[in-house]
Amino acid sequence: MAPTLFQVVTPTDALARLSTHITSTKPSAERVAIEKAIGRITITPIVSKEQSPAFPRSAMDGYAVRALDTYGASAGLPRYLQSDGEVPMGGSDLQPINPASARLIHTGGMIPPNADAVVMVEHTQIIDKQAIEVIRPVGPGENIIRAGEDISPGDEVLPKGHRIRAQDAGALAALGISEIEVAARPILGVVSSGDEIVAPDKKPLAGQVRDINSTTLLSLAQNSGANAQAFGIAPDSFEELRNRAHQALRSCDIVAISAGSSVSTRDMTADVINSLGKPGVLTHGLTVKPGKPTIVAVADGKPIFGLPGNPVSAIVVFGLIVEPTIRRLLGASNADTRPPLRARLTRNLPSETGRMDFVPATLIHRAGDWWAQPILGKSNLIFTVVQASGLIQIPLNAGGVEEGSWVDVELL
Amino acid sequence: MAPTLFQVVTPTDALARLSTHITSTKPSAERVAIEKAIGRITITPIVSKEQSPAFPRSAMDGYAVRALDTYGASAGLPRYLQSDGEVPMGGSDLQPINPASARLIHTGGMIPPNADAVVMVEHTQIIDKQAIEVIRPVGPGENIIRAGEDISPGDEVLPKGHRIRAQDAGALAALGISEIEVAARPILGVVSSGDEIVAPDKKPLAGQVRDINSTTLLSLAQNSGANAQAFGIAPDSFEELRNRAHQALRSCDIVAISAGSSVSTRDMTADVINSLGKPGVLTHGLTVKPGKPTIVAVADGKPIFGLPGNPVSAIVVFGLIVEPTIRRLLGASNADTRPPLRARLTRNLPSETGRMDFVPATLIHRAGDWWAQPILGKSNLIFTVVQASGLIQIPLNAGGVEEGSWVDVELL
Repeated sequence: MAPTLFQVVTPTDALARLSTHITSTKPSAERVAIEKAIGRITITPIVSKEQSPAFPRSAMDGYAVRALDTYGASAGLPRYLQSDGEVPMGGSDLQPINPASARLIHTGGMIPPNADAVVMVEHTQIIDKQAIEVIRPVGPGENIIRAGEDISPGDEVLPKGHRIRAQDAGALAALGISEIEVAARPILGVVSSGDEIVAPDKKPLAGQVRDINSTTLLSLAQNSGANAQAFGIAPDSFEELRNRAHQALRSCDIVAISAGSSVSTRDMTADVINSLGKPGVLTHGLTVKPGKPTIVAVADGKPIFGLPGNPVSAIVVFGLIVEPTIRRLLGASNADTRPPLRARLTRNLPSETGRMDFVPATLIHRAGDWWAQPILGKSNLIFTVVQASGLIQIPLNAGGVEEGSWVDVELL
Repeated sequence: MAPTLFQVVTPTDALARLSTHITSTKPSAERVAIEKAIGRITITPIVSKEQSPAFPRSAMDGYAVRALDTYGASAGLPRYLQSDGEVPMGGSDLQPINPASARLIHTGGMIPPNADAVVMVEHTQIIDKQAIEVIRPVGPGENIIRAGEDISPGDEVLPKGHRIRAQDAGALAALGISEIEVAARPILGVVSSGDEIVAPDKKPLAGQVRDINSTTLLSLAQNSGANAQAFGIAPDSFEELRNRAHQALRSCDIVAISAGSSVSTRDMTADVINSLGKPGVLTHGLTVKPGKPTIVAVADGKPIFGLPGNPVSAIVVFGLIVEPTIRRLLGASNADTRPPLRARLTRNLPSETGRMDFVPATLIHRAGDWWAQPILGKSNLIFTVVQASGLIQIPLNAGGVEEGSWVDVELL
């Protein structure tokens, strides 16, 4: 199949075509301690075996009372209650409270038998060692957290596909869950190619440049929850590129080939990918600028991408295509994806309908609004995105955006 | 000094008081390989020793030409140029191009001697093996990236205090920089306290609860760029809490004590902190809900915090006080802090002027806008922030916010 038969497609369409061919839909599981689980993705719902709280607790600092002993209390006509000691924190085996009495209790303290409400300390006054006055009535259950009110045995604490955050780890600790099953990280294999590319630790000769994309793609993969492995730099030769790509495909779950710069090497990348397995290349070209010369492919159930050699294009396409694929292999839900920042444009930006544009930008906070200041340059080199805080996204069907308009900025 | 002498202060004021007493202003340095540097903070500006690009390169696929040979070219009156071969990618030692000729060049290819412009391939037509026609003129320098145009030797690539992202690592690779100096991670020591608190791996007896805050604070510290170490759980005893806090202070850069629940144990925490070094407690109470019972202190140059025992309060105060302190010790600039999400409120929220309120919320995307749906509950337990995507922030001087208003949401 000649690449010219392929039409450029939107990133959404490319992902849809990809998803019909990916066979490894269920990620493999890995048990991790909760303190190592931050950022990982749950593979099954996490269900509590316990109730929380385990005993009725005070929601306030105050006095545990029988609610009926406070009825009719007011500032003008306070109710007097006998002081009945103090609930020790962490204590149990409590004596029931006596009628018309009140026991000092701290937030989180266990409600004693017979007590059915807590009067906030602000609504009481100490009279002497024997008595307090209550100036507002409480109803049964007031300021009490019932046993099991937050979590009952069998309740789902975290859904499947959930990214573990600090508070989630804390909630698991509260329930005595010290280990959970998470999705194993998929491995992304990265192959760079191009006769002009040398490893970053080499001194380039005239006409050569150092490999940027291996470093960038490995870092992006780790941020996206994958492990990543570099498979070196192939010159623009079918056999050598195929060897490295084949090696990557054998040991990884996803392969990204950073393609050479010329049209002929891009076609060669497509031929290499088609030689690796079926169905091969699905789309050759995205309706994205920068990032048009992108190959989306599948070989025997595993996704393979031919990414543009330009480092800014590679970053854009990683976010649009590779990262969603990693999240899919992780079984990650989209509920917790970070919304882009809304900002206003500091100047007009041209675009074409039928194409998504991504423009590096700095952010300026001015009069309560965020403004996105495009960084324009002819070369679209890595240094433009080093200066940038994010990428302005101009939607598919906008023919340019005017100064002052609101746009989405994907933070970098 | 009795705690009643302290007034509650705003988080900004608390940080300002803290900063006058922190002595360790210069973070210590650590050399790391760039592939391990993601998320770390530069300790000095990173300066290039090289120029980039190292040689004049084509910004486009097209033909390298002498600009004057294209003057007057148009679709109606094209200029005919002799084909002069192809620039090999990665090649050097190029022959000068002849007058009235054009050499095929790929994006990133080296501009041959004598050539001073590149005609885009779209503005050419191949006539036969010997000649092409050019239908638009180019000026000198057009579609060429000059040597050193992006970076000159001595140029700052990354400023001091910058958080390294994937593209920054890529830019360093481009310049042959394989290792950089970053700020060493400060160590946060966490001490839990409370007679009712047991370790997460213990089965709590009636009246006891498992420690949540050690797990949560350790995770938050790691997300903020610190290392964290737990120093166990102290009962509500001055000596035992002091021993653990003293141990933490000796080996860590910052100490956070998760205080017990009662007023008396909070006062005891202040006494313990005052016993550890000068000047001791700076503020006792923040104008924040939840999070009011917070102690901000310094002992002999090191920050110490008494955080509320309530896990939601501890998370709020971590973001307001502890994280900025970690960033200060790292020497991190605020240029790259992530702006909060702007969202609209789904219902009225009460507040009091003079107090910042933080309300856990889920996010809903509706008709192009984000809406924040408050999660209301009397207990403010960890499970409310497990359900939440973020915390709605009601500013200090807002007396409540109405349904439909725009608010800032700190994503969790």
